[in-house]
Amino acid sequence: MHHDNHAMDACIQACLDCHRSCLATVSHCLAKGGSHAEARHIQIMLDCAQICIVCADFMIRGSDHSAHLCRECAEICRECATSCADHSDADDMMRASAAACTRCADECAKMAA
Amino acid sequence: MHHDNHAMDACIQACLDCHRSCLATVSHCLAKGGSHAEARHIQIMLDCAQICIVCADFMIRGSDHSAHLCRECAEICRECATSCADHSDADDMMRASAAACTRCADECAKMAA
Amino acid sequence: MHHDNHAMDACIQACLDCHRSCLATVSHCLAKGGSHAEARHIQIMLDCAQICIVCADFMIRGSDHSAHLCRECAEICRECATSCADHSDADDMMRASAAACTRCADECAKMAA
Amino acid sequence: MHHDNHAMDACIQACLDCHRSCLATVSHCLAKGGSHAEARHIQIMLDCAQICIVCADFMIRGSDHSAHLCRECAEICRECATSCADHSDADDMMRASAAACTRCADECAKMAA
Repeated sequence: MHHDNHAMDACIQACLDCHRSCLATVSHCLAKGGSHAEARHIQIMLDCAQICIVCADFMIRGSDHSAHLCRECAEICRECATSCADHSDADDMMRASAAACTRCADECAKMAA
Repeated sequence: MHHDNHAMDACIQACLDCHRSCLATVSHCLAKGGSHAEARHIQIMLDCAQICIVCADFMIRGSDHSAHLCRECAEICRECATSCADHSDADDMMRASAAACTRCADECAKMAA
Repeated sequence: MHHDNHAMDACIQACLDCHRSCLATVSHCLAKGGSHAEARHIQIMLDCAQICIVCADFMIRGSDHSAHLCRECAEICRECATSCADHSDADDMMRASAAACTRCADECAKMAA
Repeated sequence: MHHDNHAMDACIQACLDCHRSCLATVSHCLAKGGSHAEARHIQIMLDCAQICIVCADFMIRGSDHSAHLCRECAEICRECATSCADHSDADDMMRASAAACTRCADECAKMAA
C-alpha cells in the first residue's frame, strides 16, 4: 500500500501527541487517586503511551513493519480512549486524553495493514 | 488462551536477551562497516531490539495486548535472524544474534495470538 | 576510566533485571491498591524501570555517555529501593524489587562517572 | 528551582522534535552510506534520539529527576549537533537535525540542574 508522506507525518505527530497525553494522564490520575488510580485504567494508559512511541519510531525509521504496529496502536488507542472517556469520574484532562487517543487511532487506522 | 507463568517467564527472558543481543550487534556491525553497515541490515536489528523490549514490557505488565505484541515480535525476530545468519559476511557475533532471535521468535510464537 | 567487560556485563544484567522487577511491581502495586498505589511510589518505580533500560542500552551500545547514565541510574535505584523497602505495607514482591534496585545501584555506582 | 509550565512545555516539545529528527536522520544516513554511516555518527544520533524521549518522559511524568536528565540530554544534544553540522558531507537533512539538537540542548539547559 502506498501512503503519501503527508499522511505518515500526520500519523507520527498524532502518535507523539498521544504518547505525551497518556503519560501525563497517568501521573494526573495517580495523583487524584481513588477510582482514577484503578489498575486497569492506569495499565491501559501505560500500554497506550508505549505503543504510541514505538509505532511512531517504526514510521520514523521507515520500517516495513510500521503498518502492523499501526494496526495494533489503533486498537490499543481505542481501548484507552474508552477507558478515559467512559470513566465514571472523567475530568477535563481525561477527556483531552481520550480525544488524543481517538485522533491517534484514526490516523493509525489509515496507515494500518 | 491460558499460559502458565513459567512459559511467560521464559518468553520475557528471551525477549530481554534478544533486545540486548541485537542492540550490541548494531554497534558491532556499524564498527565493522562495509556490508555489515547496510541500511536494511541495521534497520531490521533496530526494529528487532525495540519490538523485543516492548513485547517484554507488555508481558511484564500483564497486559491483555501482550499476545498481539508476541505475534509481531516473532515475525520481526524471524526476519532479523535471517538478516544476520544469511548475511554474506556473517561472523560469530551475528550468528549468536541470529540464535537469540530464533529463540525469541520460538518463545513468542508460543504466546502469540 | 577503564572497566573490564565482566563488570559491564554484570551491570547491564543488573539493569535489565531491575527494569523487569520494577515494571512488574508497578502492576502488582496498582492491583493491590490503597497505599501501594500512592502516586509517589508508582512514579519512582516508573522512573526506575525506564532509567534502568536506558542505562543498559547505553552500555550495550558502548556509548561514551554510559558512565553518566550509570550515575543517574544508581541514584534513582537507591530512591526506588527505599520507596519499596520502607513502605509501610511492604510485601514479598516489594522486598524483592528493593533488592533488585539495590543490586543495580551497586553495579551502576561502580561504572559511574 | 522553579520552572513555569510554559518553559517545561517548550522543553518537552523540543525533546520530542529532536527525538523524531535524530531517528529519521539515522535512517537517512544509513541509506546514504559511506561517511554518513560511520559508527560514531550513527551512534551519537541513536544516543541522542533515546535520551531525548527519556528526558521528555521524565518531564511529562513530573519526575523529581527530570532536571538531571535535562542536563545529560543537553550535553548529548550538543555533541550530536556537532556530529551532524560539522560532518564533511553534511546535507540539508543533517543540518536540520543539527538545528533540532541545538534547540533541544538550549531548552534542556534552561531546565537542567
